[in-house]
Amino acid sequence: MAVYTDINEVDLKAFLAEYEAGDLLSFKGIAEGVENSNFLLHTSTDPLILTLYEKRVDKNDLPFFLGLMHHLAERGLSCPLPLPRRDGALLGELSGRPAALISFLEGMWLRKPEARHCREVGVALARMHVAGRDFAIRRPNALSLDGWQDLWAKSKDRADEVEPGLEAEVGDEMAFLGTHWPKDLPDGVIHADLFPDNVFFLGDDLSGLIDFYFACNDLLAYDLAIGLNAWCFEKDGAYNITKGKAMIEGYQSVRPLLDAEVDALPVLCRGSALRFFLTRLYDWLMTPEGALVVKKDPLEYLKKLRFHRAIENSTEYGLTP
Amino acid sequence: MAVYTDINEVDLKAFLAEYEAGDLLSFKGIAEGVENSNFLLHTSTDPLILTLYEKRVDKNDLPFFLGLMHHLAERGLSCPLPLPRRDGALLGELSGRPAALISFLEGMWLRKPEARHCREVGVALARMHVAGRDFAIRRPNALSLDGWQDLWAKSKDRADEVEPGLEAEVGDEMAFLGTHWPKDLPDGVIHADLFPDNVFFLGDDLSGLIDFYFACNDLLAYDLAIGLNAWCFEKDGAYNITKGKAMIEGYQSVRPLLDAEVDALPVLCRGSALRFFLTRLYDWLMTPEGALVVKKDPLEYLKKLRFHRAIENSTEYGLTP
Repeated sequence: MAVYTDINEVDLKAFLAEYEAGDLLSFKGIAEGVENSNFLLHTSTDPLILTLYEKRVDKNDLPFFLGLMHHLAERGLSCPLPLPRRDGALLGELSGRPAALISFLEGMWLRKPEARHCREVGVALARMHVAGRDFAIRRPNALSLDGWQDLWAKSKDRADEVEPGLEAEVGDEMAFLGTHWPKDLPDGVIHADLFPDNVFFLGDDLSGLIDFYFACNDLLAYDLAIGLNAWCFEKDGAYNITKGKAMIEGYQSVRPLLDAEVDALPVLCRGSALRFFLTRLYDWLMTPEGALVVKKDPLEYLKKLRFHRAIENSTEYGLTP
Repeated sequence: MAVYTDINEVDLKAFLAEYEAGDLLSFKGIAEGVENSNFLLHTSTDPLILTLYEKRVDKNDLPFFLGLMHHLAERGLSCPLPLPRRDGALLGELSGRPAALISFLEGMWLRKPEARHCREVGVALARMHVAGRDFAIRRPNALSLDGWQDLWAKSKDRADEVEPGLEAEVGDEMAFLGTHWPKDLPDGVIHADLFPDNVFFLGDDLSGLIDFYFACNDLLAYDLAIGLNAWCFEKDGAYNITKGKAMIEGYQSVRPLLDAEVDALPVLCRGSALRFFLTRLYDWLMTPEGALVVKKDPLEYLKKLRFHRAIENSTEYGLTP
């Protein structure tokens, strides 16, 4: 659910007057996105998404996010396109929040994705990596090794509340990744949060990627590792190699992985599993009881981490040697 | 916020196959309605609302609600129109819930309504009363005198937690209304919940009434009393006689009030204020801390009740003698 800030029709009309956006017919707060407030607008021309950026998003990052969507859409990637105001700016203000008006993408995110969809996700992810190559603004990944250390420092004393032994196990993992994290792989702009709810399909065709609010510069193959974790495990925790193989093949059909990226995949998957484990653990421990947020189980990602730790060779992900 | 039950694309497509509804392009959970889960669907033809009826709604009442919308829309009232399935039924099932597909009304509910809007609401309410005259199904008002007694019996022991003296004050009011509630006024189908979020406007023109899930048979003038309470008080608790006068005049331009209805208005307003006070008090006391629901302050309606108790003559609402 995500309508943290409500808007009124008077302020909204004044906001829209700065755009060439047709006449407003309706607006509905929608239950998508967890960081920001989102509204679906119908106008006399096209439907639009209105996003109000809440406090969790650093205002200084908005030119990166909005500029990236613009950059990718211009290069033919199907993703939401921020509308410029009459003065050229991509950002305005509404109800005291930075706010952007963004094209509405038709399509549905899949609650029950299948292997053929995972293949399309791999293709789209690689296309995004290629299209992002010449994007000028840089944004370091705040949720890589250093960020993990910060999160862990705030959570580790209470980690054993969630599962006994967790403090030692995760501490060892942090140490391992600190030593073994790859440094010389190709980097670029990554999505960094390509979960099923951020990919739309029309029928079996991928219609677009959304929610670039974790995008940053990092290792490209790390983004694939995030995708494998997000799409290729079943609800019972088992890795689905058919889905994994499909996603990797889709990715490589656009951007073949280097040998070094293939070799690094288990470590990248461990890092990705740790990253989502740590943010979930932090939210789990810090979110006050009764907050208007559904807490996600951190142990789902602990299980994935353990799976990746047992991988001896990337072929176990479905990679053809 | 209201998405209590999520849906998946597989079940939704099977559900839609029973209708002539075009191809599904997208669906978004929307933050409207508090009793049910609502989704806005885009299709290759028209946008639609999908409503999943949650447990608070009695399934036996659905033929009344859906039939009423159909009846009113057929008589030219702008309100959501339930789509029939291919087999003629207005109701299907999705994610284990009774579910209906309903036409989408463009328009916005006003966070800042003005007197001219109150006039339009009065006009639309009277039109609804006229259009509902020959509706065949009946539904008694579960939230009239007997229902108030039930709610009060469950809340009164803890009422003084909310404000000291409340148990005595409300007990006296219940006794007064039990004795003085009018019996011989014109009755018919009333909306019974015509708050600003249930009335859409396009510019200054009323574009439709929604949310008929409290509709029932009761005194017509009681519905106007609900409207006065819902629209004609300012945030500081003051009655806005300009708005009240506008709403009453709008109403009477379609259906003039009988003298007996005019005389009964203060008592009807007291009953209406008590009704919303009681449901809010009950929710306030019974909703567990931290539930995913925003609790509404019952004292807002206590203040309104006190205002109406001090009314000596209906002209004080803005009625022209």
